[in-house]
Amino acid sequence: MFDLDWIPRFDLQAIAQRPPTIWRYREALPIDNEESIISFDEGFTPLSRLVIDDHEIWVKQDHLFASGSYKDRGASLMISKVNSLGIDHVVEDSSGNAGAAVAAYCARAGIACDIYAPASTSAGKLTQIRWYGAQLCPIPGSRADTSTAVMRAADGIYYASHSWNPYFFHGTKTWAFEVCEQLSWRAPDVAILPVGNGTLLLGAAIGFSELLTAGVIKQMPRLIGVQALGCAPLYQASLRGWQITTDVAVLSTLAEGIAITQPIRGQQILDAVRKSGGAMVAVSEEEIHDTLRWLGHQGWYVEPTSAATIAGVRQALRHLDKDQIVVSTLTGHGLKSTGKIGHLFDDASGEA
Amino acid sequence: MFDLDWIPRFDLQAIAQRPPTIWRYREALPIDNEESIISFDEGFTPLSRLVIDDHEIWVKQDHLFASGSYKDRGASLMISKVNSLGIDHVVEDSSGNAGAAVAAYCARAGIACDIYAPASTSAGKLTQIRWYGAQLCPIPGSRADTSTAVMRAADGIYYASHSWNPYFFHGTKTWAFEVCEQLSWRAPDVAILPVGNGTLLLGAAIGFSELLTAGVIKQMPRLIGVQALGCAPLYQASLRGWQITTDVAVLSTLAEGIAITQPIRGQQILDAVRKSGGAMVAVSEEEIHDTLRWLGHQGWYVEPTSAATIAGVRQALRHLDKDQIVVSTLTGHGLKSTGKIGHLFDDASGEA
Repeated sequence: MFDLDWIPRFDLQAIAQRPPTIWRYREALPIDNEESIISFDEGFTPLSRLVIDDHEIWVKQDHLFASGSYKDRGASLMISKVNSLGIDHVVEDSSGNAGAAVAAYCARAGIACDIYAPASTSAGKLTQIRWYGAQLCPIPGSRADTSTAVMRAADGIYYASHSWNPYFFHGTKTWAFEVCEQLSWRAPDVAILPVGNGTLLLGAAIGFSELLTAGVIKQMPRLIGVQALGCAPLYQASLRGWQITTDVAVLSTLAEGIAITQPIRGQQILDAVRKSGGAMVAVSEEEIHDTLRWLGHQGWYVEPTSAATIAGVRQALRHLDKDQIVVSTLTGHGLKSTGKIGHLFDDASGEA
Repeated sequence: MFDLDWIPRFDLQAIAQRPPTIWRYREALPIDNEESIISFDEGFTPLSRLVIDDHEIWVKQDHLFASGSYKDRGASLMISKVNSLGIDHVVEDSSGNAGAAVAAYCARAGIACDIYAPASTSAGKLTQIRWYGAQLCPIPGSRADTSTAVMRAADGIYYASHSWNPYFFHGTKTWAFEVCEQLSWRAPDVAILPVGNGTLLLGAAIGFSELLTAGVIKQMPRLIGVQALGCAPLYQASLRGWQITTDVAVLSTLAEGIAITQPIRGQQILDAVRKSGGAMVAVSEEEIHDTLRWLGHQGWYVEPTSAATIAGVRQALRHLDKDQIVVSTLTGHGLKSTGKIGHLFDDASGEA
């Protein structure tokens, strides 16, 4: 499904000379002509040291994109492709980060864009989407109702979906390229990533796999996917013979970015994790809250979904040797969640 | 006042090999020992093309720092210096971005930090400062009352001020280093920068000057400072023989980041601008609002102060030849101003 009729190439010397953006991997990105590229000179986010429980890991600062999340990687590729096709109007459904990213890149491209979102989405995220000039279509009801509505709209307009469109994943794969380059063209032993619809984990799997096939790295990292216990269909599937079931209990979770009850590419995600020798882990609300607070006190201001990821790292580290090279990621900026984070103070009577 | 007993050095070949952070200019940054450095691997923000009224300029994406503004440049240097001195507790006064940056770097350093801020500061900015674990001291009354309060506190605790401390400016000077490197070690003809307390403009002046002295660049760019007409003491001074007066009418402005009635280093700022052959410009609220909306529709989500800067660019471009290399900057992320930007929609009955 991700296979495009095309072979990625990596000229490491040429790459090293180029500006630090995702487009430095030009020959590995499936956009034919230069003029189609829609870019904010995004990417090559810092790979920084973080010490967790005496274990030193690497964390990629993917909250430092212009729209405030790593989704810009995928949006840049997908909207460049849309642009190359001469399409001038797209629809997308999202409850937050992907909608903002797609709206931003459409604005830069001059492509009209309708974003379908649950009417209950936080006002700040809706403000950002509208500010880019996108047409916001608030849908009453559940996230599933929003999906139904966008499918109807997509009957006549191009559906630029971050969950379906393969070009989006050929954008998020640059996460793996950058990590390996920043480690002097070596693969980490383990990559620990958040999983909702799997846009980052599947992208990373493609990226590492392309580098392996090209002989740039020597091994595939083990992929560990993190979900919140409040909404953990793929974690539960991993406990049941890696088979997806639909009877998943869903509670509310602070980690809204990965609260997906029926991931569109669920089986693909499970296959990628299992094939890599990895695992799924799930974290409690208490672990998410504690880790969010801990990150803040270390100077990292990230959205709760990123805290869930780092809480997952903490769990996984108990089972990993200290000489393993472990990479994880921060996916969304804390400034996206100011309201939610402010409430945590209120809940704790001013102490957080 | 900015003169430290020390000579910056630039080894361009060594610099090119290092990670893309402000610390790649290691020999030009006045921190003695490596162990003192407090860093989030910040800097080397993208320098991107922006077309304004058929004039192609460069804009530095300095809203893409971890705390959401360019103030991280200064905070990294200043808190590294504080750390090298063995100081374990600082005070700072700010109504927003500088307070967040200093709080973040103190958190990373394990240095206690009290941030004095007007009680009227927006809740989101106060949430961010508190989230880093800083002690927030809300002061009733004006911004001047906050300054008085912090001065009293600074009697016993180190005053880590972004307006006074020279190390802060030796951090913001990296803006100029990066711009010149990104232009293949050439100085732009003109740099157009926002001016409140002048932390960026004075830093840039130091940076360009050091590069000129070292022979890395051949000319000093002209510096153009931008203020909002609602609070424009230095613009008004430039009209009155470059002399600061205190009878400045102050109205409210969307550009809160540069609304400083009595800039601490006002005369220094004026001298730097005049000496460079530059000018001060001032923009109306209508120009700020229109430019903010225009930037959003181009896919740039920035705080209103950044829109004021770009509105100033638009003014200045009327007087510049098209072959001039013009660089400007985006200083703060739109996610810092979600509330304020949301209100603009409300004011326009849903149309922005």
